[in-house]
Amino acid sequence: MAKKYVYYFGDSKAEGDASMKLLLGGKGANLAEMVNLKIPVPAGFTISTEVCSHYYDHNGQYPPGLKDEVTKNILKVQKAMGAVFGDPQNPLLFSVRSGAPASMPGMMDTVLNLGLNDKTLPGLVEKSKNERFVYDSYRRLIQMYGDVVMGLKPEREDEEDPFEVIIQKKKDEVGAKTDMDLTAADLKDLAERFKKVIKQRLKKEFPEDPYEQLWGAIGAVFGSWNNHRAVTYRRLNDIPAHWGTAVNVQAMVFGNMGDDCATGVAFTRDPSTGENVFYGEYLKNAQGEDVVAGIRTPQPINKAKKLDDKLPSLEEEMPAQYKELAGIYYKLEKHYKEMQDIEFTIQNNKLWMLQTRTGKRTAQAAVKIAVDMVGAGLITKKEAVMRIKPDQLDQLLHPMIDPKAQRSVIAKGLPASPGAAVGKVVFTANEAALAAEKKEKVVLVRIETSPEDIHGMNAAQGILTARGGMTSHAAVVARGMGKPCVAGAGEISISYEKQEFKASGKTIKKGDWITLDGSRGQVMAGQMPLVEPGMSGDFGTIMGWVDEIRRLAVRTNADTPHDSQVAVNFGAEGIGLCRTEHMFFEGERIDAVREMIIAEDRASREKALAKILPMQRGDFEGIFKVMGQRPVTIRLLDPPLHEFLPHTDKEIKELAAKMKVPAETIRAKVDSLHEFNPMLGHRGCRLGIIYPEISEMQARAIFEAACRVKKKGIDVHPEVMIPLVADVKELELQRDLVVKAAEEAFTKEKIRVDYLVGTMIELPRAALTADRIATVAQFFSFGTNDLTQTTFGLSRDDAGSFLPKYVQMEILPNDPFVVLDEQGVGQLIEMAVKKGRATRKDLKVGICGEHGGEPASVEFCHRTGLNYVSCSPYRVPIARLAAAQAVIKEKQK
Amino acid sequence: MAKKYVYYFGDSKAEGDASMKLLLGGKGANLAEMVNLKIPVPAGFTISTEVCSHYYDHNGQYPPGLKDEVTKNILKVQKAMGAVFGDPQNPLLFSVRSGAPASMPGMMDTVLNLGLNDKTLPGLVEKSKNERFVYDSYRRLIQMYGDVVMGLKPEREDEEDPFEVIIQKKKDEVGAKTDMDLTAADLKDLAERFKKVIKQRLKKEFPEDPYEQLWGAIGAVFGSWNNHRAVTYRRLNDIPAHWGTAVNVQAMVFGNMGDDCATGVAFTRDPSTGENVFYGEYLKNAQGEDVVAGIRTPQPINKAKKLDDKLPSLEEEMPAQYKELAGIYYKLEKHYKEMQDIEFTIQNNKLWMLQTRTGKRTAQAAVKIAVDMVGAGLITKKEAVMRIKPDQLDQLLHPMIDPKAQRSVIAKGLPASPGAAVGKVVFTANEAALAAEKKEKVVLVRIETSPEDIHGMNAAQGILTARGGMTSHAAVVARGMGKPCVAGAGEISISYEKQEFKASGKTIKKGDWITLDGSRGQVMAGQMPLVEPGMSGDFGTIMGWVDEIRRLAVRTNADTPHDSQVAVNFGAEGIGLCRTEHMFFEGERIDAVREMIIAEDRASREKALAKILPMQRGDFEGIFKVMGQRPVTIRLLDPPLHEFLPHTDKEIKELAAKMKVPAETIRAKVDSLHEFNPMLGHRGCRLGIIYPEISEMQARAIFEAACRVKKKGIDVHPEVMIPLVADVKELELQRDLVVKAAEEAFTKEKIRVDYLVGTMIELPRAALTADRIATVAQFFSFGTNDLTQTTFGLSRDDAGSFLPKYVQMEILPNDPFVVLDEQGVGQLIEMAVKKGRATRKDLKVGICGEHGGEPASVEFCHRTGLNYVSCSPYRVPIARLAAAQAVIKEKQK
Repeated sequence: MAKKYVYYFGDSKAEGDASMKLLLGGKGANLAEMVNLKIPVPAGFTISTEVCSHYYDHNGQYPPGLKDEVTKNILKVQKAMGAVFGDPQNPLLFSVRSGAPASMPGMMDTVLNLGLNDKTLPGLVEKSKNERFVYDSYRRLIQMYGDVVMGLKPEREDEEDPFEVIIQKKKDEVGAKTDMDLTAADLKDLAERFKKVIKQRLKKEFPEDPYEQLWGAIGAVFGSWNNHRAVTYRRLNDIPAHWGTAVNVQAMVFGNMGDDCATGVAFTRDPSTGENVFYGEYLKNAQGEDVVAGIRTPQPINKAKKLDDKLPSLEEEMPAQYKELAGIYYKLEKHYKEMQDIEFTIQNNKLWMLQTRTGKRTAQAAVKIAVDMVGAGLITKKEAVMRIKPDQLDQLLHPMIDPKAQRSVIAKGLPASPGAAVGKVVFTANEAALAAEKKEKVVLVRIETSPEDIHGMNAAQGILTARGGMTSHAAVVARGMGKPCVAGAGEISISYEKQEFKASGKTIKKGDWITLDGSRGQVMAGQMPLVEPGMSGDFGTIMGWVDEIRRLAVRTNADTPHDSQVAVNFGAEGIGLCRTEHMFFEGERIDAVREMIIAEDRASREKALAKILPMQRGDFEGIFKVMGQRPVTIRLLDPPLHEFLPHTDKEIKELAAKMKVPAETIRAKVDSLHEFNPMLGHRGCRLGIIYPEISEMQARAIFEAACRVKKKGIDVHPEVMIPLVADVKELELQRDLVVKAAEEAFTKEKIRVDYLVGTMIELPRAALTADRIATVAQFFSFGTNDLTQTTFGLSRDDAGSFLPKYVQMEILPNDPFVVLDEQGVGQLIEMAVKKGRATRKDLKVGICGEHGGEPASVEFCHRTGLNYVSCSPYRVPIARLAAAQAVIKEKQK
Repeated sequence: MAKKYVYYFGDSKAEGDASMKLLLGGKGANLAEMVNLKIPVPAGFTISTEVCSHYYDHNGQYPPGLKDEVTKNILKVQKAMGAVFGDPQNPLLFSVRSGAPASMPGMMDTVLNLGLNDKTLPGLVEKSKNERFVYDSYRRLIQMYGDVVMGLKPEREDEEDPFEVIIQKKKDEVGAKTDMDLTAADLKDLAERFKKVIKQRLKKEFPEDPYEQLWGAIGAVFGSWNNHRAVTYRRLNDIPAHWGTAVNVQAMVFGNMGDDCATGVAFTRDPSTGENVFYGEYLKNAQGEDVVAGIRTPQPINKAKKLDDKLPSLEEEMPAQYKELAGIYYKLEKHYKEMQDIEFTIQNNKLWMLQTRTGKRTAQAAVKIAVDMVGAGLITKKEAVMRIKPDQLDQLLHPMIDPKAQRSVIAKGLPASPGAAVGKVVFTANEAALAAEKKEKVVLVRIETSPEDIHGMNAAQGILTARGGMTSHAAVVARGMGKPCVAGAGEISISYEKQEFKASGKTIKKGDWITLDGSRGQVMAGQMPLVEPGMSGDFGTIMGWVDEIRRLAVRTNADTPHDSQVAVNFGAEGIGLCRTEHMFFEGERIDAVREMIIAEDRASREKALAKILPMQRGDFEGIFKVMGQRPVTIRLLDPPLHEFLPHTDKEIKELAAKMKVPAETIRAKVDSLHEFNPMLGHRGCRLGIIYPEISEMQARAIFEAACRVKKKGIDVHPEVMIPLVADVKELELQRDLVVKAAEEAFTKEKIRVDYLVGTMIELPRAALTADRIATVAQFFSFGTNDLTQTTFGLSRDDAGSFLPKYVQMEILPNDPFVVLDEQGVGQLIEMAVKKGRATRKDLKVGICGEHGGEPASVEFCHRTGLNYVSCSPYRVPIARLAAAQAVIKEKQK
């Protein structure tokens, strides 16, 4: 038997089902599933993702037999819908839509109204009794087909869409204010002008043959799998390129055939808060794209979720259809055990379902929905834990606008994605991306966003749009990204030309600061103060389940009592990395540090170090007090000494005056400490070996602090970490010195504390010789930032000129400084764990690079048998969740 | 039975033999062996190296039972020598000498004449009938003992030796010109004054008790194992610190008891040329130290090797003893099958042998002796190959003074170590070491050298001394190091104070250039031109044997036709690394390169690259012609682009004027290309990926050149090497582009050439993922310079502030940039070879880091199964020899 490439659905029968997502794409599988659930779906068929693979493997050729299969399925659809494709009297129209295994909203192409031509137009007019609708559909077909299939696009970036230019010209000619003011004749004329511009610019005719139209659209959808937007989206969302997309060919139903028609989008629960209320938006006499594109502000679907009283709800306007829809929502959610995002169209009062899929939601909503569904017995606790995307949690953990701050709201919009964003205004996605590269915080302000803006949205702190609803592109994408978003703020008037917007009589120019409150839909001028979020309610509940499940401990990287306290509040079980050098910069102590560096001999260095000692001891006391009996890993001084010296002539002169030495002395020291590759220079334990007095002072400060805090009844557990070890002998020398300082402190303070001495594994050689290093080290902590730099031979500070392009070109699947490179760096980690534990069975092993808070990397750490991960305070809950999910995933395998 | 620590020798009986070097040290083992060979040796005993280990492991304590063993052996010696230690009538005197398993000439301490005191002095006077000799011996004992055992040294660096001050004062008092002019009474007085200064400065008495003297001396010798000089020497010569030294206690015989006494040092063949002639020097009425120290210029041992007729030879003066000595020389060389370095003393016309050991020799001598001994059937070819130290070959391979150059000789001395040295004059070892750190070439000029000068000798290009013979410290050490040396140039007068020397009426100041010809013993003012050495004669013979034995191929790192030719002359079998960036700097092409870098778009870059193409093609044609059918590995551009741009304001302005662009444009480019860690920056294949047009141009130049040369009938074999690959996808992209360029060139030139595409393995990640990389790479070449940098996280340019200290502190056994780090970097190499060959069975693997010419690293490469090593042209013969020795060593195991 020949391979099956096409799967029919409709008429209460479907050849596929929801389990076949990889083959039929999410949309196709769910359409089939809905048909199986006896939900009204316009008939159609799905061309499988295997055809997409074949298409790319064979230079755009389809597998043999596909055409026949498609023809057979068209016949089935004709039968089901009672109309015929290309028939002048009773024409059937098709939509052609992409449908990948994973949701990629708006990333690929769609063509609607296929089958319209000079021959079928009169038939449809006759059938619909609505000439204006028919010519509007026709001009939409030509416009979409001309753009998507035939490729008529603006030729330069600043050129407007050629079709929109024609529409505007026509409107001016006839004095129409909006598209709605155009008559059937106007629209018919538009269609002719569109065909003309296509012929003129492309030297090709718009095809009249319905089958040619259909195959052109199918080819365009397969082709769109590899467009720039789709590739970017896949990269951001870790979707494999080889999956491919399916193509859904489905009978058209129309929400824009008249006032007994409507089209809408709904969620089975509130995607912003998670509230268990049916929620959605619709437009009467419109096509579905009109709702999502945000060109008209849509109406609420039910009374319960009306934002104001101006617009009537579907529940009020079409109560029977609303009731049927609500019934379907219950059926779907119970069936899928997940919040659903559904699309529907009402054509001449008949309800048709066009799509159902798992709905995107904010972190807050995800948490609430998961907890509610456990409460309702729909899902288990483990399933609930798996429902939360760790990265998304960030939304719940980052600061909100200080409730005590006075708000001066300059504009209101929809609360499209929660959280607060503070940034400088930019008006294009490219500017946002450029600013983010320079580490500037920006808010992207657009009339409306489109899929082309996705990189700018990702780079911005938040998004503000003037048009569009809660399901507009901006709102959906922002929620998925966890970016605060205020959408449809109709009061603001944006001028791209002047690079400014006006609101409440104020003019905000490019570069001015604004603050968004995505939870309330408010826009404020200037930078508002932010405060920390809480950890209670549903979030607390789910984190309790997380902690029951996970094996990995989660520590934090913190250098101050304040950060330590934040992390403890977020559930940190210890400090995995306390960087002592940050303390060296604080306040007056930098003077003593500089004195120490300028010193020409050991005695002078020790004199300066003696000044630093009490300050360091105080720092450690503060941290020990906050952390209590939790372990605290303190890393000895790591950066090269030149980092502590001034570099400009002016600063050097100031320092010289302060230190009462000639400027030349300082300049000479700065010169002598200059390094070509500081990353690979005189730093880490190399400092402590050449200047043992530095390590001695630090060890003394640690142990004296520990003794003093222990005397207050707190059972402290310091862990001293030696950085940048390449050979066990380095560690041995530093360990000996730490042990000596500890014993001296214990004698002096008349109390002992338990402690460990261990090392960072951050150089390939340390991993390679971990068996030897473990003879001395009581613990390993992987410094994956530096380990990634050395393993790849890649300076994080300098990689900007090529690393982004590497990710874009898919040379690397991710930025290895964000997601741990399992193939290379991970191999060294596995090796070091194995070798280290072979020498010392109870070796404690953790990670303290920034990967410790990245979910995929946390999962790797779990699989590799680490004892803990350590990350920045705000990422502690993310790491906890990822650690729990790692356990569940492992058991699933 | 108790452990045996002491081994007797003497009286034709010995408890040890030559095989026991690790236990008895070289000296002790050979003394025992000589006794076994019935050669006259003063009786004595050896305290084993195990005692040294015990001494260091137990804080300076001796193992129990040692004292008794020593006492018993003293009785044996007394019996053999017919005298009694400490006996007033018939006193026996002892020498105490170090003797490590490996020769460490002059590095450790020695004390002579032990057993002399107020009670035994008269007995020795009676016995020797030579009061002057006795008091001279006594003052020597006090002087040596006071210095070595009791530690009376100059207190400051510029202070003279306190004993020498007293001697000088005495000489002034009595009007003595030399030491020989001092009478017995003078010497007796000196002894008293010596004892007084000891008491005064050390608050301790010189010990009268012979046993106390003996044990003091034994302790001092063990203690000297860890003095600074010895530690340095061990490091330079790869001698393990745990070996320890033995101590030889031996009955004194005297060469300075009168005119029927003499002492001398001899080699069984000429250590400078290798000529098979008994060769040596002696002094009448002297102690051995006088010959080596170079204080008196010694006499030749035989007529055959007399340099002039002024001094009579031993053969003429003491023919019977000479004959006996010559007989012993035959016996020893036949027994050891090696050239021997022997020491003897004639006391009252009786010959005593004090030492025999393998003689140090120049590379030239080593080669000649090895070839001659094979010819004489003494040793096999393999043994001959093992006799040559690869590092020493350097001496034969480096340039000599151009024979056509006019020589203006300002002084003549002994041809103590061959080769030419050109450098600026310095007068202290410290200055030499400092200058070498700054990469300055210096010649160390000393009145005589001492073991304290060893680091300066190592740092200098060559050594010139005013005093001392062919066996003086300077001569022996220089030959061992392969440094040119002119010794005993009595015509020069050196003033350390004025930092200058005078010769032939010329004054040469510190910093002035001089040239040494160590082969002829000549000193020239200024810098003489040098020429290449040849590869014929005995050297050619032995290299023929080497090539029969070795498995590893040896290639060269060469970037020009000239270097390629030099390497081919030295036996290179291909080019392992041709760095194309060197070509980028040459002549006018740097302008085109800069134009390419400043270019803002691909089209402008391609325009500039088009100018470089014909020049690069020309370079490659030149190299292909020289290399013929040997493989030529060409690495694509590696350094970051900023290396090609000027950096000072002045240079930037000049370039701007030349390029007709504003200086700001260039400065902006320089700034934008600035990197914090260029070693880890935008370089290697990362350039070719972001700017594929650069790789395309280079590939095109390579293949067009290859085609053109092949058309001339030369079957070229280019191998294109992609640098700094971290992931197989990088290599894949560059490979595709190289293959495309190759095909285009073949079409254009209408001829095809065989070629390979491979990669450098110079990042840990490349080694870790070698299995994947080998799916694309046809060869690997280990770039061990960068691989060492990344594996250690160590910048070669910045390591100067700590790496030397690391080696000194024995944290690392060697500088890993000189000797390959087998534990870390080597592990990655082994892994990569294994993984690479698992993917591609016939993968060609080589090394092109500087380690490719370092003997220990070459041996590692052999063991690890590499196909070839590649090194600088001058090191090719060294690598060939090391490769052959690796085969022999492997078979020995």
